[in-house]
Amino acid sequence: MDDLSRFAINQITTRNWTLPEAIEGYARQGVGGIGVWVDYLDATGVTEAARQIRDAGLFVPSLCTSAWVNTDDVAAFDKALDENRRRLDAAAAIGAKCLVVVPGGLAAGEKDLVTARNRVEDSLAALLPDARSAGVALGLEPLHPMYAGDRSCLNTFAQCLELCDRLGEGTGMVADVYHCWWDPQFAEGLRKAGPERILSFHLCDWLVPTRDVYQDRGMVGDGVIDLSQYRRVLDEIGYDGPFEIEIFSKLDWWQRDGEETVRISIERCAPLVNRRVQENA
Amino acid sequence: MDDLSRFAINQITTRNWTLPEAIEGYARQGVGGIGVWVDYLDATGVTEAARQIRDAGLFVPSLCTSAWVNTDDVAAFDKALDENRRRLDAAAAIGAKCLVVVPGGLAAGEKDLVTARNRVEDSLAALLPDARSAGVALGLEPLHPMYAGDRSCLNTFAQCLELCDRLGEGTGMVADVYHCWWDPQFAEGLRKAGPERILSFHLCDWLVPTRDVYQDRGMVGDGVIDLSQYRRVLDEIGYDGPFEIEIFSKLDWWQRDGEETVRISIERCAPLVNRRVQENA
Repeated sequence: MDDLSRFAINQITTRNWTLPEAIEGYARQGVGGIGVWVDYLDATGVTEAARQIRDAGLFVPSLCTSAWVNTDDVAAFDKALDENRRRLDAAAAIGAKCLVVVPGGLAAGEKDLVTARNRVEDSLAALLPDARSAGVALGLEPLHPMYAGDRSCLNTFAQCLELCDRLGEGTGMVADVYHCWWDPQFAEGLRKAGPERILSFHLCDWLVPTRDVYQDRGMVGDGVIDLSQYRRVLDEIGYDGPFEIEIFSKLDWWQRDGEETVRISIERCAPLVNRRVQENA
Repeated sequence: MDDLSRFAINQITTRNWTLPEAIEGYARQGVGGIGVWVDYLDATGVTEAARQIRDAGLFVPSLCTSAWVNTDDVAAFDKALDENRRRLDAAAAIGAKCLVVVPGGLAAGEKDLVTARNRVEDSLAALLPDARSAGVALGLEPLHPMYAGDRSCLNTFAQCLELCDRLGEGTGMVADVYHCWWDPQFAEGLRKAGPERILSFHLCDWLVPTRDVYQDRGMVGDGVIDLSQYRRVLDEIGYDGPFEIEIFSKLDWWQRDGEETVRISIERCAPLVNRRVQENA
């Protein structure tokens, strides 16, 4: 028997399912947790979703994602902060360990990444008291450098870990192999972060060729990422947090039935997430 | 009048032109140099190409590229090294300052980037005596992380600079803003490299959105890269080497007439490459 108690599926992986369908579908196949997205959560309603997740016995590694702050308009920036406060409360209500921070890239017409990155740091500093009082960590997720312009200007593990160092308690790392696998400093970064600051570890694979910049991520095992290498690093440092599969795939997995995607996700990830494997390693 | 004496066009930018057409077309519009590709060079013949380039008065910042060494087959690896020796000789014959190193990504079926990167270092160490005796530098070009799997496992400026440190004389950096602009450590890397070790500086732009992973690079000015920021860093450190525009663009520029591409390249790059601008800065 597989031990899937640390294994979660991020619901974007079964994009066509509503949140209630995902909760039911994951729990039925024995998955331990669910990564939740804000728009699906809002569609169901926070209170109702919280009840369903609790009844299904699922843990929630993360709520995706924070609202973008890539604007140099003060009112729009403040509005984004307020929306993020609402999302922190929603995360707390469903028992999510963290709100995944994806802050946007450059503002419209902007070319200065340093300014954009400073603005993100300002926004996080402003949210930190709310995060602490909500008991929900700000989960900094370095996004692949190919998203620096439009989706997130947080692009390396080292960069995000330095941000965590500066911001302190109430922040942590969301490490996704899709975004970080190429980085010569990724393994070193995981060791430096330590088990306490890695809030969730995302599983995915890099396809060769990649046919779409945004939505052609691969099922675990179908690409070129050496996932077992990272599992070994995580075991070495004593990481005992979640493993969360997250796949954006308009060309393949989003076209399949959710049942099949869940079944194959489990098949592919079980050898990586099993406690037994860890103990025998 | 623009001073285009440091300005080169990499011939892939005018992909539909033969090498003789590119030499003639660039020289006619006053461009100072030409970045040459091996397949075009072979089609013309090295001796003939060398004569035409010399007669046109163009400098050659680089020959693109080295043959891939992403194979774990010893015979295939040795064959790639021999091909690279031939390319070093060809580079010397046309007066190219460097052979641009693009070594391939993972070998077929391979998932271990550390092994791939060590193999690249071995290949460069093996070629170094030949590069030194040919008087042609091995130009390490960090490629964007989105190419780590299939095109090059050299993916950050810092990683390549460390390689140069270990290999020593006969190596240098080819810095391309397209590949490095997102990197929080890029400016610091340029300063650390210093003017001597930056062999060529490639100009390009990052389009938002990017519609194709490999061949949708933008004309200078059409994207989100803050090129003047990097020009300032290069001036600060006393860089006086080439500025070379290089655009892979099957969706736009490769469909246009070469004359137009050259004209617009000059329009867009002149403010960046003019010595006058530097002196007035």
